[in-house]
Amino acid sequence: MSDGLFDAVLAAGPVAAQVGDRAWVQAMLDFEGALAAASAAAGVVPSEAAAAIQNCCYADDYDITELGRQAVGIGNPAGPLVRALTARVAGDAAGYVHLGATSQDVGDTAAMLVTHRALAVLDDDLRACAAQLAHLAEIHADTVQAGRSLLQQGPPVTFGLTAAGWLGGLATARDRLDDIRRHRLAVQFGGAVGTLASLGDNGIAVLSELARHLGLAEPALPWHTERGRIVEIAGALGQICAAVAKIVGDITLLAQTEVAEVHEQGPAGTGGSSTMPHKRNPVAAVLAAGSAVQAPGLVAALLGAAAHEHQRAAGSWHAEWRPYIELLRTTGSAVHWLRISLDRLRVDPQRMRANLDLTGGLVLAENVVTGLVSTSNGEIGRHTAGDAVAQCCQAALAGAGSLADLLAADSVVGKYLDREQIERLLDPALYLGSARKFIERALDDWREKL
Amino acid sequence: MSDGLFDAVLAAGPVAAQVGDRAWVQAMLDFEGALAAASAAAGVVPSEAAAAIQNCCYADDYDITELGRQAVGIGNPAGPLVRALTARVAGDAAGYVHLGATSQDVGDTAAMLVTHRALAVLDDDLRACAAQLAHLAEIHADTVQAGRSLLQQGPPVTFGLTAAGWLGGLATARDRLDDIRRHRLAVQFGGAVGTLASLGDNGIAVLSELARHLGLAEPALPWHTERGRIVEIAGALGQICAAVAKIVGDITLLAQTEVAEVHEQGPAGTGGSSTMPHKRNPVAAVLAAGSAVQAPGLVAALLGAAAHEHQRAAGSWHAEWRPYIELLRTTGSAVHWLRISLDRLRVDPQRMRANLDLTGGLVLAENVVTGLVSTSNGEIGRHTAGDAVAQCCQAALAGAGSLADLLAADSVVGKYLDREQIERLLDPALYLGSARKFIERALDDWREKL
Amino acid sequence: MSDGLFDAVLAAGPVAAQVGDRAWVQAMLDFEGALAAASAAAGVVPSEAAAAIQNCCYADDYDITELGRQAVGIGNPAGPLVRALTARVAGDAAGYVHLGATSQDVGDTAAMLVTHRALAVLDDDLRACAAQLAHLAEIHADTVQAGRSLLQQGPPVTFGLTAAGWLGGLATARDRLDDIRRHRLAVQFGGAVGTLASLGDNGIAVLSELARHLGLAEPALPWHTERGRIVEIAGALGQICAAVAKIVGDITLLAQTEVAEVHEQGPAGTGGSSTMPHKRNPVAAVLAAGSAVQAPGLVAALLGAAAHEHQRAAGSWHAEWRPYIELLRTTGSAVHWLRISLDRLRVDPQRMRANLDLTGGLVLAENVVTGLVSTSNGEIGRHTAGDAVAQCCQAALAGAGSLADLLAADSVVGKYLDREQIERLLDPALYLGSARKFIERALDDWREKL
Amino acid sequence: MSDGLFDAVLAAGPVAAQVGDRAWVQAMLDFEGALAAASAAAGVVPSEAAAAIQNCCYADDYDITELGRQAVGIGNPAGPLVRALTARVAGDAAGYVHLGATSQDVGDTAAMLVTHRALAVLDDDLRACAAQLAHLAEIHADTVQAGRSLLQQGPPVTFGLTAAGWLGGLATARDRLDDIRRHRLAVQFGGAVGTLASLGDNGIAVLSELARHLGLAEPALPWHTERGRIVEIAGALGQICAAVAKIVGDITLLAQTEVAEVHEQGPAGTGGSSTMPHKRNPVAAVLAAGSAVQAPGLVAALLGAAAHEHQRAAGSWHAEWRPYIELLRTTGSAVHWLRISLDRLRVDPQRMRANLDLTGGLVLAENVVTGLVSTSNGEIGRHTAGDAVAQCCQAALAGAGSLADLLAADSVVGKYLDREQIERLLDPALYLGSARKFIERALDDWREKL
Repeated sequence: MSDGLFDAVLAAGPVAAQVGDRAWVQAMLDFEGALAAASAAAGVVPSEAAAAIQNCCYADDYDITELGRQAVGIGNPAGPLVRALTARVAGDAAGYVHLGATSQDVGDTAAMLVTHRALAVLDDDLRACAAQLAHLAEIHADTVQAGRSLLQQGPPVTFGLTAAGWLGGLATARDRLDDIRRHRLAVQFGGAVGTLASLGDNGIAVLSELARHLGLAEPALPWHTERGRIVEIAGALGQICAAVAKIVGDITLLAQTEVAEVHEQGPAGTGGSSTMPHKRNPVAAVLAAGSAVQAPGLVAALLGAAAHEHQRAAGSWHAEWRPYIELLRTTGSAVHWLRISLDRLRVDPQRMRANLDLTGGLVLAENVVTGLVSTSNGEIGRHTAGDAVAQCCQAALAGAGSLADLLAADSVVGKYLDREQIERLLDPALYLGSARKFIERALDDWREKL
Repeated sequence: MSDGLFDAVLAAGPVAAQVGDRAWVQAMLDFEGALAAASAAAGVVPSEAAAAIQNCCYADDYDITELGRQAVGIGNPAGPLVRALTARVAGDAAGYVHLGATSQDVGDTAAMLVTHRALAVLDDDLRACAAQLAHLAEIHADTVQAGRSLLQQGPPVTFGLTAAGWLGGLATARDRLDDIRRHRLAVQFGGAVGTLASLGDNGIAVLSELARHLGLAEPALPWHTERGRIVEIAGALGQICAAVAKIVGDITLLAQTEVAEVHEQGPAGTGGSSTMPHKRNPVAAVLAAGSAVQAPGLVAALLGAAAHEHQRAAGSWHAEWRPYIELLRTTGSAVHWLRISLDRLRVDPQRMRANLDLTGGLVLAENVVTGLVSTSNGEIGRHTAGDAVAQCCQAALAGAGSLADLLAADSVVGKYLDREQIERLLDPALYLGSARKFIERALDDWREKL
Repeated sequence: MSDGLFDAVLAAGPVAAQVGDRAWVQAMLDFEGALAAASAAAGVVPSEAAAAIQNCCYADDYDITELGRQAVGIGNPAGPLVRALTARVAGDAAGYVHLGATSQDVGDTAAMLVTHRALAVLDDDLRACAAQLAHLAEIHADTVQAGRSLLQQGPPVTFGLTAAGWLGGLATARDRLDDIRRHRLAVQFGGAVGTLASLGDNGIAVLSELARHLGLAEPALPWHTERGRIVEIAGALGQICAAVAKIVGDITLLAQTEVAEVHEQGPAGTGGSSTMPHKRNPVAAVLAAGSAVQAPGLVAALLGAAAHEHQRAAGSWHAEWRPYIELLRTTGSAVHWLRISLDRLRVDPQRMRANLDLTGGLVLAENVVTGLVSTSNGEIGRHTAGDAVAQCCQAALAGAGSLADLLAADSVVGKYLDREQIERLLDPALYLGSARKFIERALDDWREKL
Repeated sequence: MSDGLFDAVLAAGPVAAQVGDRAWVQAMLDFEGALAAASAAAGVVPSEAAAAIQNCCYADDYDITELGRQAVGIGNPAGPLVRALTARVAGDAAGYVHLGATSQDVGDTAAMLVTHRALAVLDDDLRACAAQLAHLAEIHADTVQAGRSLLQQGPPVTFGLTAAGWLGGLATARDRLDDIRRHRLAVQFGGAVGTLASLGDNGIAVLSELARHLGLAEPALPWHTERGRIVEIAGALGQICAAVAKIVGDITLLAQTEVAEVHEQGPAGTGGSSTMPHKRNPVAAVLAAGSAVQAPGLVAALLGAAAHEHQRAAGSWHAEWRPYIELLRTTGSAVHWLRISLDRLRVDPQRMRANLDLTGGLVLAENVVTGLVSTSNGEIGRHTAGDAVAQCCQAALAGAGSLADLLAADSVVGKYLDREQIERLLDPALYLGSARKFIERALDDWREKL
């Protein structure tokens, strides 16, 4: 049993409450209530009995710890809950509780309801993150920054493009999840072996009504041992976590003491240190990373448990519960910490420019070569131009002077390019290619989705 | 280096050839050829130069082993291939090879082309499997079989329903993959840091033409370090493998010596044993399982490698290659072995019925209870009926006689049910609920997809 | 927060309490108390101050939920606990709380203490399981059973050999864990960056005393970002789960309705079904499987989080907590359910023999071939003998008679083997090779370990 | 089939050749040859027959591609190899080939031999890496460097301590692997179902001789479906990869353009860029990371495949092959690239010192507080001292002057500490605590292991 020692850190945000024990019990009761109503609608159960059952479907009326304790006998908490519900329902109506259903019908449908509710609150956080990223992409469209490859500086980008890339990944992952939330979360209802035999000819009618009552999709057939749905949800959550991990990994790198292009400005007592006031620990980004990185193992666990035997699995169903809950929770935590990190994010354009200048223009040497070739009108080829520029770069690296000076003084380069041209070719703001257009495309995509 | 010692077993089927070294080299050359053509269409490269480049883009003209060897310097095989291609292209056209692109543009786009081609041949196998499952579902709609839960017999199903469930899982997984193949496989083109800076204002135009030439989607922006696409493909392949694992796991269980409801009838020398001619090893199902079960770890590896740093990853890109190729290959192998297993599958309806009779009708006791309650017109309740039937079941189990006899002789049961009614209530073929309708729904879904 | 809805099922046994929130808080307080004592022993802290601190190190005096809540600021629960402890300690002694230590020193050492205590109670269950397996191996040394390969019957084994194999796997895995418990669980103490700088020259002395006080190993140097220890523990727990999964997988298969060689005899209401009294769900084995199968993903998560940056990780430390706790808990649950399953296990030697007879001796055909060759004194070779026997097997399979009759009637076989010889060659109890010796070796190994 | 397009990068080093197809075929032939010899020693096979068999056990005499092709029938390559060997052996001796063995005996023993040989060459690389790390730890024992926590600078360490930490992790992981290589790699020999029935009473004798001939351990009983050995090897390889990932992750971070404390000095054309000559891509570290990070998924795959059914698995054995080979290969590649990275590593002590000075002594504020408290002889407490120093730190951060000046001018600090004392307290070289002793302990440990 957990009192939540680690939950504030690793189960942050609104998703945690939606996947907790109480939420599960309520979702199971929602199934039972909806089943009674659906059965009444299909004429299988008297309306009064259905109403009586529905009146007993409030989680607060049940002792969750006791349900958990009783779960040990049958191996799942649905059985004890059905017994407790039946005991609570007065008179003849008790005989109509859980009609035609089996424990896994309750458990799986509850999982879908829990997921639906968790994804709804997760989506709030996701949209807030995306909005903030879109804002950053927009306002920093002209903020030049060193591009980095293998953690080495390369040609310039803009921080707006960086943010647009982050947005693209997160928005696409959100799309997948949104699609799943709307279309793939389906009711489970099949009875002992998936035939709904005890309902005779009424099985399909009750199934349809049940799906309608719960706002879930109606599956073509019961999916007790066809777990593609679980696997698909897991994959989509893993994709969200991957998108988060990418963003917060970059933030942590950009926040390094030696890079310092961004930092998190949290409330007092967050991320700092009284004796080391220069420290600006990107705590939210770090906790987002710590949450997100748990997804791959959980997804693998769910994939590994997906081959359920015959009509009902011998262990794999039970094996799903914890990884499934954990995956929802850790995804919720990762996205929530990302939201906090983005809210706290402070961007330092001056430092971005200063870091870009660390290499004295060397990252733009490629551009000088291209400029040299085209200005020479074919008099010198790419190879000769490259050699000349490379020589100046080596000299600059060796400390012989600024790259601009060395290029201007070079016999080959100086012949075709004057000082002003060289300065322009070495200006990162003029070597951004399609960066701005890419930002616009990413923003357009995002706005279209809203 | 591998000569394929294990490939016949674990890399079976047509996908393997589509993800082999030669396929990768051709795909990289296809990128370079299409880039030349696209650049020409965008006015960035002379048409003749483009044509000259395209003429050199045949994999058979390159020494793959040598390319592999040279990959060690730069850390990927795209670099050496570009050098080899440039060397092969005559005259000025050589200067236009790979214009504006970076190694990862080549590698990632090649991955998408390889995937597109692999998924196309995979789909042939998937559709063949689904067709065979649909056929089994149809012809065995009336073949009663024991339902099984936790590997214990429960109420009856039909083998048709079993096959329909298998079909549902596989067809849904195929849908996802088909959708990805049509819409998510996108060209990669961004240059050194994703700005296409060296193409000035022409970047987007070349990108669009490139996508058109290759028949791939045009991404909003380069995705060098936004790996949602890879993760999504991985998840979909994992879902296919999960669906396969479910089916072949069931086949292997049904083929047990003691169950013997199905067997694989392979060519001579397959699955049998001269000294143990009773043995009917379901070799194809076993190898499908052996292939499918590798997916979870590979999907986790790709999820775990998805957080690429800044504009270009420091290791995670390289970390993707082997798991990605392996995942395509093992999925191809799993599906191909499933196809073979289904082709070889022989179903024994008599044995299915005989196994169902092993428990002497006990699996239908639930039905007798229901029948008893309803026949009594409320004179006896579910509880009393249940006790009476349970007592007969215990007696039957203890060897006191057949369940039908014991029920008929019971004072409570016998009062409301005559022998014929009892026989009907114990007839598995009459206790199948919505099984037939579920089969029809699964078949309708599948036909609609075609 | 969890009230334990799923814990009775998936967190069974005594380990769960040792890895719960209260256990963590106590372990962190144990670190602080031992640190004070060790510092006093090293002359760094006055003895009275140390005693005052130690007096405040009882978990029940702290509000765990509140500690969890406060953990959000700094990102771990050690910080708030140190603050709460400091507040509790009266007077000057408060200034000596946590001297020289950093949060991760507290957290990591607590993890080792928690692990030590969890492994101790786990070992009780492991030894009980092994003892039971040894008992089964011993008493069933002569109980013949069909050997099975790919779930097809093959030559005979004994159930004793089966149990000895289970024992071997579990006992070896236990050895590894025992070794880790005794030698690898080490104190963590390095201060902010692993130099113990604030303790001047006294760092090593305090470290040594601290290890001695806690009964943990003294590491050569702090291991804040060297996580081999965590990875090694994870691997050993994964190995335990693999051994459990093997055993309970076999039990579940042997308990199938159609095989019925073993069953679990649980208390009333466990594994049975009033309407389906023949059902003998091997609930404990199934829940053991459901627990054990979660290990691979958790081990992968811990391996994937093992590369901690520089002197303190940016997320990977936080990423360890849940998978680490879950892995301990699920291993505890798996072993505990295995223990219950073995306690409940009922073995049916008659059914084992009957199943072996299902194939009418065909599984022993190999032995007849060997016997024929040797009896003929080289007159007929292995090939000829094999053909003759195979022909009889095919005839037996086709229903032409019993294998013994057909062999006796065969012109080749009958020439060298009389009816009695044939019966002996077809007697499974006489074709067990080294089975008994292997059992003895496994039992000797186990006894030696005790 | 693979021509090795990606092998130079991801299958670097000497291990790859030891786990390739030819190595497997030779290892399988070594089993057959040793089995013949062992059987002769046990008196089961004539010496001449054994010699004749041994003479045919050279891999170069076999067509590996053809063996791979034939593997499809039976599902593994051991069967076809035994057939090919039998065909090659002349006369009567052919009848003694593979006596008493089954395919999995061949495959598993070959896996152990392959592993033994792979681990031997891996150990060369591991020892070379450790030696280089020991050298770095020794010569940089006084090279101060910023300690870093969450990628933010903290109090100083030395690069020697950093290297000692790297050494500790790698050396411990190597120990585990060395232990496994010496004690856990065991011969597999059990025949069809693990009883060695066809050898009558001679089974154990042949087993013992076989182990002796092959230089492998003799297991208590066959381990066809007891895969703890495989799981344990996998865990140890995963631990090696984790240790490598930690080291090369740090190297890549230290090599960042903005940090530049180390770089790899590779041969021409490695890691550089003609147009960006400042670039010093740590290619070897990056490829080591790309190799190492594949381990977690592969370990999970092997753990997930460890529960083999009954006497012979229905798919899980086949599922092991690729992940097992890949894990050996990728570990070999990771360690080999680490060795190259360490060989190329150039350390810049000046830059380390300069980076440490970036924060103007703020990282040592903690030390000033301690110094202040102790110098005041209890006149001011830790709290007052902390406040005074923190105020100066804030002022320094705000640009009001150097920290030393501000501290000297502070009324509280200045009262107890003179300028020289302040300078000493701010000297990183004097605030290293037990760093040097920790280095010595790590070096002692390593030397002891040799």
